[in-house]
Amino acid sequence: MNTRYKDIIGQIYREVKALPADGNVADYIPALANVDPEQFGIAIATIDGEVIGVGDYQSKFSIQSISKVFTLAMVIRHMGDRLWRHVGKEPSGTAFNSLVQLEWENGIPRNPFINAGALVVTDKLMSLYSHPKEAILKFVREAARTDDIYYDKNVAVSELEHGSRNQALGYFMKSFNNIDNDVDSLLDVYCHQCGITMTCEELARSFLFLANHGINPHSGEQILSVSQAKRLNALMLTCGFYDESGEFAFRVGMPGKSGVGGGIVALIPGQLSIAVWSPRLNKYGNSNLGIETLERFTTYSGISIF
Amino acid sequence: MNTRYKDIIGQIYREVKALPADGNVADYIPALANVDPEQFGIAIATIDGEVIGVGDYQSKFSIQSISKVFTLAMVIRHMGDRLWRHVGKEPSGTAFNSLVQLEWENGIPRNPFINAGALVVTDKLMSLYSHPKEAILKFVREAARTDDIYYDKNVAVSELEHGSRNQALGYFMKSFNNIDNDVDSLLDVYCHQCGITMTCEELARSFLFLANHGINPHSGEQILSVSQAKRLNALMLTCGFYDESGEFAFRVGMPGKSGVGGGIVALIPGQLSIAVWSPRLNKYGNSNLGIETLERFTTYSGISIF
Amino acid sequence: MNTRYKDIIGQIYREVKALPADGNVADYIPALANVDPEQFGIAIATIDGEVIGVGDYQSKFSIQSISKVFTLAMVIRHMGDRLWRHVGKEPSGTAFNSLVQLEWENGIPRNPFINAGALVVTDKLMSLYSHPKEAILKFVREAARTDDIYYDKNVAVSELEHGSRNQALGYFMKSFNNIDNDVDSLLDVYCHQCGITMTCEELARSFLFLANHGINPHSGEQILSVSQAKRLNALMLTCGFYDESGEFAFRVGMPGKSGVGGGIVALIPGQLSIAVWSPRLNKYGNSNLGIETLERFTTYSGISIF
Amino acid sequence: MNTRYKDIIGQIYREVKALPADGNVADYIPALANVDPEQFGIAIATIDGEVIGVGDYQSKFSIQSISKVFTLAMVIRHMGDRLWRHVGKEPSGTAFNSLVQLEWENGIPRNPFINAGALVVTDKLMSLYSHPKEAILKFVREAARTDDIYYDKNVAVSELEHGSRNQALGYFMKSFNNIDNDVDSLLDVYCHQCGITMTCEELARSFLFLANHGINPHSGEQILSVSQAKRLNALMLTCGFYDESGEFAFRVGMPGKSGVGGGIVALIPGQLSIAVWSPRLNKYGNSNLGIETLERFTTYSGISIF
Repeated sequence: MNTRYKDIIGQIYREVKALPADGNVADYIPALANVDPEQFGIAIATIDGEVIGVGDYQSKFSIQSISKVFTLAMVIRHMGDRLWRHVGKEPSGTAFNSLVQLEWENGIPRNPFINAGALVVTDKLMSLYSHPKEAILKFVREAARTDDIYYDKNVAVSELEHGSRNQALGYFMKSFNNIDNDVDSLLDVYCHQCGITMTCEELARSFLFLANHGINPHSGEQILSVSQAKRLNALMLTCGFYDESGEFAFRVGMPGKSGVGGGIVALIPGQLSIAVWSPRLNKYGNSNLGIETLERFTTYSGISIF
Repeated sequence: MNTRYKDIIGQIYREVKALPADGNVADYIPALANVDPEQFGIAIATIDGEVIGVGDYQSKFSIQSISKVFTLAMVIRHMGDRLWRHVGKEPSGTAFNSLVQLEWENGIPRNPFINAGALVVTDKLMSLYSHPKEAILKFVREAARTDDIYYDKNVAVSELEHGSRNQALGYFMKSFNNIDNDVDSLLDVYCHQCGITMTCEELARSFLFLANHGINPHSGEQILSVSQAKRLNALMLTCGFYDESGEFAFRVGMPGKSGVGGGIVALIPGQLSIAVWSPRLNKYGNSNLGIETLERFTTYSGISIF
Repeated sequence: MNTRYKDIIGQIYREVKALPADGNVADYIPALANVDPEQFGIAIATIDGEVIGVGDYQSKFSIQSISKVFTLAMVIRHMGDRLWRHVGKEPSGTAFNSLVQLEWENGIPRNPFINAGALVVTDKLMSLYSHPKEAILKFVREAARTDDIYYDKNVAVSELEHGSRNQALGYFMKSFNNIDNDVDSLLDVYCHQCGITMTCEELARSFLFLANHGINPHSGEQILSVSQAKRLNALMLTCGFYDESGEFAFRVGMPGKSGVGGGIVALIPGQLSIAVWSPRLNKYGNSNLGIETLERFTTYSGISIF
Repeated sequence: MNTRYKDIIGQIYREVKALPADGNVADYIPALANVDPEQFGIAIATIDGEVIGVGDYQSKFSIQSISKVFTLAMVIRHMGDRLWRHVGKEPSGTAFNSLVQLEWENGIPRNPFINAGALVVTDKLMSLYSHPKEAILKFVREAARTDDIYYDKNVAVSELEHGSRNQALGYFMKSFNNIDNDVDSLLDVYCHQCGITMTCEELARSFLFLANHGINPHSGEQILSVSQAKRLNALMLTCGFYDESGEFAFRVGMPGKSGVGGGIVALIPGQLSIAVWSPRLNKYGNSNLGIETLERFTTYSGISIF
């Protein structure tokens, strides 16, 4: 495969890099605001074990909301469908619904990829693991097949200091008895998971189990059942890009997840996963060049789930 | 293929038919309320031209919201991306958003499959065709490869008489200048399209062009471009089942569209389309047995887009 | 009384007229957009029969939403508390709630002074009177003690032509079975009542019965019971100024009602009513100079209900 | 006055006590849930210094949200109109708006009597006083002319333990930079102020300055300016009874404030204040018998602001 995809992402890299700069990096914490906005990398990992990349695909960045996929997989493999009593599976509608919707729906977040839903997932994870932060790192390292993955403590601390909104979400859901653990501890774990740094290469590798029926193609381990993997992919397709999920499905048509660090990882079931990183965000908080790259990738390669 | 799928839908038919009755038929108009709730049919059409069916798959029923896919295809092929200035592509969030969201977003409906969005699409269709009702029938007949498709005037008139909510939507969007035609005429066309009656077999056939890169596999006609067909499928996946779209993607994982007449049609790109009909609805307005059938179909056949 | 109040409103007139122009006249229909924005008049009527005025207090203007008080009085005197099954008594919260709230609360408007609530009131009035438009004019003429009060047909027709939003409200409530009459006929009556033209002098006179325990001080007729008059005043205090009702109560502290024609009429129970007209509106749709005038009036005169 | 009002409240006491029990005591914390629901007291204080009472008018109860009037008065006298940059003056619309509205209006609560608004007021009070809890007690004791007023620590602690919703509000507003102090400290002060216990007699006395143009009639101290007192009364009329404020203004027509402890205090400017206590609440969280009592009081006495 190498040659064909290598040519395609090489061409896309040149085209997209030449586009006029548009959007701004996330600036709500200094650790994100100070990132060089010109960085840009793409990596593809196939289920038969090859990895190719272009640009800054081996530079570390803050994965932010992409971490929600890892914690969701960790919780689903243990809890199965019992999780869905505490969090829904529907797209959230509009961004400002975050708290509105929680109030209407009695503290049950719409899906696990909005912040409220991700807090519920991490809360369950804390009840499952006595050392949740260690457990998360271990899971991600195994998925990415490298031990070189860490929390950026600086980012985690900054997130905590600027986390009033997430504290509000946590206490609000606790008032509906939908959070079991202490809200302060929950935010500590949550801000750490958001502060994991990874490269495009590591991200692409770490999502391969979702493109491979739940099986880590390297170790052969069945991380999720076939059905669970399919369903997590469906969730990413309908809810993975905040209030731009419909647009992403429409333009790109791959299950995926974005983070405000500028990363996006997406996949074609049975074939490959692809990670892109460019820190400038559009108004929905998704990487501008990331979306451009993925749209061209499905167009040029002709592969699509639809 | 016939044998394998025939066995599968035969088995599903027997299993699902044996489930305890659950849900009620739509009762807001007599023409729907009087339908025999025990009817149940399944039909599969493959892109290589075969059709198989079981149960009441050759009985006519009211396609209702499934018609929104036909009108959307008709408008997209003429207007292309200009349509999206008037209607969005995002899941609508909660059901009660229908009017709420319109007010917040200045009369631009969230997607073409909620009623407000479908009204916008039909309004554009009326501006494109001098005889819109004739044009719709012609399009559906060609897609389904039969002339035996008609409006049920009885249903259309009943819908009009009980259409205060849709009139409210129409006038509300007109107050934002997002409806070009007369609201009364718009509702007349809209209530007719909802009142089209078709069989499972006809529905399955008529959606094949969406499973076949936009090309009618019988006539070879390119109805939509490859990209338009992919995108319409993405829209059905994220928005096709009212406020149960996420759940349907999660459990079934096929692009599809439901109607309150109890019909559902879904498809696997590159392979087939499948139509189910059973009039009892769940609380979201989707056919209970229809969803059961399609979930078992993806499980038993092992085919899925994810 | 004449001398004291005459001095006060003379002083206020000079002060307020010297303020820099701020705000714009209503421009959604030509008949309102073309009004000379510099016109400004004040009139006071006391329950012992005196009337004084300053500026353009004898010029006719479009009373618009002030008419909602007249129709409410007409319906309450016949229906009494039965009306409140169809419309609430609570302030509406935010302006954009208009349709949102209707959807949440099943078609029951929050109060009779938002458009939806006023439509319900006029709908009831139509069921009470066989010639509603004649009945409204008769009521207003008797209250104002003059036959020289008419509908401005030009305004009524313009309102009807630009009335998509009100049509949406009407059909929406009808979908909840909260409108009994035909929506088109309802809007015809409603747009006429909004198009009544009166002078400040006539408006001040016509509200005297509300300042006088429900009794028209001229004719001695008991239009409303003592309790009904008190309650209508309470409603004006809590709901009379759209989403600025709290602010008006806070700054001015008189029950009153405004209209987008630039008129405001307010009253001190047991004493007087006062009407102001100046067409420039603030962002809430209330007359800028009108509010300034009334705030100064309570401050300079020292009279207040609080 | 004694005789007349004594007769009236004696008669009301007998009538209302004979009504069938309706509603439940607040049960979200044990300290409130265990209150004897049959207790019932009424006290009237006039601005010329007389106090009369009937029933349990000298029993202590938890004043809860009535405390919001005291803290608001304390902050307004120091900050004046600068406070209104941080909290609005409009009725809140529907109850569930509490968080919804905060999100739409960028963390500025609608008025100082909903919980979010009261938290903003207490936050400002904490910035004004180095020992806020002592300052509040001192203010209330002077207003009520007794030193026998304390915090019920039991209630305060219970409120804190069940305060997730208020914590959510606090952190949410802090995320909009509308809270200056530490949220934990803020909740400590806030839960204490809600836990003040007073009798009907003390409450009636303590509100007299609001009925007397801002002047404590006993000490002669000008606590608020005439204008500030008028305006605080206007706020109580439009916003003092949660989502039943319009109804209370309509039925009773007095400025007042209720608490979930079952207390209500209301006033007639220039004349008197009246406190009622009965722990059973209606669905809006207001004392059932309290509202009955006050409605009869205005009817039987014939005094009203309208």
